[in-house]
Amino acid sequence: MLRTAMIILFGVFIRYNEESDAHWIEHRKAKNISSDIENDFYFRYPSFQDVHVMIFVGFGFLMTFLKRYSFGAVGFNFLIAAFGLQWALLMQGWFHSLDYTDGKIKIGIENLINADFCVAGCLIAYGAVLGKVSPVQLLVLTLFGITLFAVEEYIILNLIHARDAGGSMVIHTFGGYYGLAISWMLYRPNLDQSSRLQGSVYHSDVFAMIGTLFLWMFWPSFNSAITDHGDGQHRAAINTYLALASTVLTTMAVSSLFQKHGKLDMVHIQNSTLAGGVAVGTAAEFMLMPYGSLIVGFCCGIVSTLGYIYLTPFMEKHLKIQDTCGIHNLHAMPGVIGGIVGAITAAAATESVYGPEGLINTFDFVGDFKDMVPTQQGGHQAAGICVAICFGVGGGIIVGCILRLPIWGDPADDNCFDDEHFCSLKQERQYQVTTQSFIPQEW
Amino acid sequence: MLRTAMIILFGVFIRYNEESDAHWIEHRKAKNISSDIENDFYFRYPSFQDVHVMIFVGFGFLMTFLKRYSFGAVGFNFLIAAFGLQWALLMQGWFHSLDYTDGKIKIGIENLINADFCVAGCLIAYGAVLGKVSPVQLLVLTLFGITLFAVEEYIILNLIHARDAGGSMVIHTFGGYYGLAISWMLYRPNLDQSSRLQGSVYHSDVFAMIGTLFLWMFWPSFNSAITDHGDGQHRAAINTYLALASTVLTTMAVSSLFQKHGKLDMVHIQNSTLAGGVAVGTAAEFMLMPYGSLIVGFCCGIVSTLGYIYLTPFMEKHLKIQDTCGIHNLHAMPGVIGGIVGAITAAAATESVYGPEGLINTFDFVGDFKDMVPTQQGGHQAAGICVAICFGVGGGIIVGCILRLPIWGDPADDNCFDDEHFCSLKQERQYQVTTQSFIPQEW
Amino acid sequence: MLRTAMIILFGVFIRYNEESDAHWIEHRKAKNISSDIENDFYFRYPSFQDVHVMIFVGFGFLMTFLKRYSFGAVGFNFLIAAFGLQWALLMQGWFHSLDYTDGKIKIGIENLINADFCVAGCLIAYGAVLGKVSPVQLLVLTLFGITLFAVEEYIILNLIHARDAGGSMVIHTFGGYYGLAISWMLYRPNLDQSSRLQGSVYHSDVFAMIGTLFLWMFWPSFNSAITDHGDGQHRAAINTYLALASTVLTTMAVSSLFQKHGKLDMVHIQNSTLAGGVAVGTAAEFMLMPYGSLIVGFCCGIVSTLGYIYLTPFMEKHLKIQDTCGIHNLHAMPGVIGGIVGAITAAAATESVYGPEGLINTFDFVGDFKDMVPTQQGGHQAAGICVAICFGVGGGIIVGCILRLPIWGDPADDNCFDDEHFCSLKQERQYQVTTQSFIPQEW
Repeated sequence: MLRTAMIILFGVFIRYNEESDAHWIEHRKAKNISSDIENDFYFRYPSFQDVHVMIFVGFGFLMTFLKRYSFGAVGFNFLIAAFGLQWALLMQGWFHSLDYTDGKIKIGIENLINADFCVAGCLIAYGAVLGKVSPVQLLVLTLFGITLFAVEEYIILNLIHARDAGGSMVIHTFGGYYGLAISWMLYRPNLDQSSRLQGSVYHSDVFAMIGTLFLWMFWPSFNSAITDHGDGQHRAAINTYLALASTVLTTMAVSSLFQKHGKLDMVHIQNSTLAGGVAVGTAAEFMLMPYGSLIVGFCCGIVSTLGYIYLTPFMEKHLKIQDTCGIHNLHAMPGVIGGIVGAITAAAATESVYGPEGLINTFDFVGDFKDMVPTQQGGHQAAGICVAICFGVGGGIIVGCILRLPIWGDPADDNCFDDEHFCSLKQERQYQVTTQSFIPQEW
Repeated sequence: MLRTAMIILFGVFIRYNEESDAHWIEHRKAKNISSDIENDFYFRYPSFQDVHVMIFVGFGFLMTFLKRYSFGAVGFNFLIAAFGLQWALLMQGWFHSLDYTDGKIKIGIENLINADFCVAGCLIAYGAVLGKVSPVQLLVLTLFGITLFAVEEYIILNLIHARDAGGSMVIHTFGGYYGLAISWMLYRPNLDQSSRLQGSVYHSDVFAMIGTLFLWMFWPSFNSAITDHGDGQHRAAINTYLALASTVLTTMAVSSLFQKHGKLDMVHIQNSTLAGGVAVGTAAEFMLMPYGSLIVGFCCGIVSTLGYIYLTPFMEKHLKIQDTCGIHNLHAMPGVIGGIVGAITAAAATESVYGPEGLINTFDFVGDFKDMVPTQQGGHQAAGICVAICFGVGGGIIVGCILRLPIWGDPADDNCFDDEHFCSLKQERQYQVTTQSFIPQEW
Repeated sequence: MLRTAMIILFGVFIRYNEESDAHWIEHRKAKNISSDIENDFYFRYPSFQDVHVMIFVGFGFLMTFLKRYSFGAVGFNFLIAAFGLQWALLMQGWFHSLDYTDGKIKIGIENLINADFCVAGCLIAYGAVLGKVSPVQLLVLTLFGITLFAVEEYIILNLIHARDAGGSMVIHTFGGYYGLAISWMLYRPNLDQSSRLQGSVYHSDVFAMIGTLFLWMFWPSFNSAITDHGDGQHRAAINTYLALASTVLTTMAVSSLFQKHGKLDMVHIQNSTLAGGVAVGTAAEFMLMPYGSLIVGFCCGIVSTLGYIYLTPFMEKHLKIQDTCGIHNLHAMPGVIGGIVGAITAAAATESVYGPEGLINTFDFVGDFKDMVPTQQGGHQAAGICVAICFGVGGGIIVGCILRLPIWGDPADDNCFDDEHFCSLKQERQYQVTTQSFIPQEW
């Protein structure tokens, strides 16, 4: 039983760190910390809760737009995330917070945030295969996804020493290409058989707006959740706030330009408006400057919206990649842009802008890396992008092969995008009774 | 007029405490507190807002699953909560924060949180009688519920000196049995007359998922809102986060095992996934250890889901207890489990695990209780469970009798679960006009 | 291109302030601030996120009640807000945070909150013309609205030196009358042509409840977001919490009194329950006392509900003011009441209640105003109300004239309240296909 294994692993490895352990009081006195308020909990908890909302309500409801798959979207999102964050605590713990003195993983609020981030990578991948895979396949996708994520994150952040506070590379680029590669391996030529279910209805689109808005509003917390205390978190929040605001305007402008009669397309409003948050992820903690954030948001809004109009149909027709939620436009491309922006901003950093100490703190030029200079850092950032793409594509192809094994009970083509295949909708039958009797009250 | 009485009582009794009073600056200097950030507001306000969301959106939308009672659920939830928290501020104030020097109740952020907790007890009870009582009956249920709650809380926390940060005993056990006893007293043999309205429709189930998710995400704040500053809040959040994640997996596993074709039942996903948060409430602030939290969540997921499958129908058929939302599986049983877990964890506490000071702080072994040892504490915790159950059942039977008086205008059996009985749905008529003309646009 | 102009203006004027700049570490040492936690970010960020939710989800979903205009409400709300906050950062920056040494605007978290407040003023105005204007008209309405807001705010807060933490005058009174004046200028005699779309349906009303509840729950953050550190924020949250709770009960009582069979009207529950938060805005940071907050909430609940029952129909019939969302009852009137309450509370302030230092801090009697006494302050508060009303009405009439120019592509009378005019609802067509084939699954 999976649960039992998880419990044993937690029992063997996972303990509280000194800020969440009852010995905190002694620790405080030893470190002479003047007040309980300096416990890391109070620096990060509000951001953690916002990230938590993004993972479960944001991602969950963003995918409810399908008229008959709202439960599948929210429910399986719930399942993946709940399973993934436990596995992520273990995998990331082994790589990042293993205490070599006693071989235990010491967890605190920051580990919970990182676990949520790790899960986000897999939820992005879920967006590409939404409605076309079985719950078991999702668990397999998540199990391998989390593992790959932890390794890739370790390489990018610790070995290459790239900075990636908002995870443009680590989370979005990796998650995006991981999902697209899987979707490519699981190509269904006859998917149009269930196309009658692939659209949305009025209310399912309004539900999707709940997801969009919670992701949009809380993105500043996402990008500032694990940045440096003080100015780091402050600056990351401001940059993200501005980039997102800028994206909304650009998206609506482009969307109405390319629709006949200048109407707005809800798909663009639901998705492309978020691209700015992805693209500012890496550079959010740097001195990107407010106008820099606006420029990033501006470009991403254009790229992402045009992606929905031209690229997604092209990929489906010619590259045999069926991307249900269009994650390539919302996560993969903006993620790569974010990585590039981060590399440029890092390479352009100067002591006059950051101040001597600010430069060291922001880029963490300490320990083995204390002789690094911003230009070098820029190169390392660029290397990070490549690693993320390779892990995404490579890992996705391998996992895709595994998922093609006929043992996972994936749905037939004409059962795709249909809740009834996995959720027993008791009320449906009862409902049909009632429709005859008094349809108006139905609403 | 009720309102006037409330205003007079507030005028006579309620004042700001020294942290919310304009004299705070002098107070700060007197106590030489180094910074405004050490005001209790900054320790608790983010958790307070999360709890507030759970009370109004979480509980409110969790009960919207009935196809024709979404307004009743959200609206009356809103009414009960808004009334209850004012009454709770007074009742809890008299028992807990009365300043004997001037006979005033001094309130701060912690009182607001406790008032929300107190209201939660009554909202749980509302879940059992949802759709079967009139607004007036609800106000009576709340008035007595809050009063009983304050007394019971005073006995358990102050006299017995049990610890119950997340309220497994004080809130969930009491609220659960209080509601069930009332529902038993108000048994309606002919309820099947309105059974046509007792089901859910697709969108009403998605609305209910909003409630589920906000309760699930913010539960760590619920359990950590009033625990000790520093490690107490930090640890409570981590334990709750893990217990909830564990429950989700177990619930989905059990649910699919017991459904034909391994489908998932939305009722279980909407409710049982939350049981872990209830069951970890008491022990959340103790050194439960991460694996301990997983075990608690694991057990609760099984118990709660099986409760929905077997116990609820049994209770309705043989015990004449009609439990609309299944609060017995979501609150009552997990609450008792939580109390037991708390008792065991407390009894097993050792100085080596908590550290000398940690032990004293965590269990508050000061003043009259400074000679207590963990084993004793375990006994006191157990006593707390009994008190909660007695108050719940006993109080529920008494209040149930009162509610059976024919003066409250309760709905006839065939008006149950129907908004129209209490809300004037203007649009309904207008709607019927429109249906003929253009039904498709209706959606 | 509007975006480019915005980027250039940001490039020229906007920089990080010393708390969000990488030089923070040097700044900290210079000011010998003991810990990063004293960065303003940690005082205000949780409140900021709550305000952000109110602006985008709260205001957005509150307006989704129209059966066919849910997208328009949420989507255009999104567009206005995202555009408005960028423009607000510039306008407010020039008036409030311009650093004269280098002519730059230094922004931090407080500026983001103020930008959100500024946007709120325009969203209130949007409520009056909801469904009757084109996106371009909305942008014009916002552009001028923000500009007027910044001037009016500067006059009231800086020149007149009135206090208005929650913006009863600055935000709600101004926004309300600004919107009503515009709606008056844009009067449509034949609006009944689209009256078939002016109602709500069951689910669109439940969506509106999401907006109501998020506004209601987070209002304490709204009123405490920019008040003084420490007791100021603490007290503002408590007062708002109590006023809102009180309003809910009064609203439901009045609503059921004036409906036949004592039923509740959803329109009142969706709107009037919020009036208390508006009315306590100015006085929230003063020593209003808990019972004072209850009284304010009590009065506002009555005024606002009666407004919906009698005033709105009267205004539409005789004054030719079509107020789609009834902002006159929710914002304009309660805002004026709030201003008056603030003036009285300020005039009644005594050193015995506030303490010598408390009085100075609360009313900011420093610099040019250090000789002011509470009675004077009361007069200044009253002057503030008049300024807000004049700017609202005057500005609204001027902007209304501009909007009447036939160049903005406003919808014909029978296209009002209809999404299809502005959003391309792809699914609609596809949807119609499906309805025939299998209506039950439609839900």
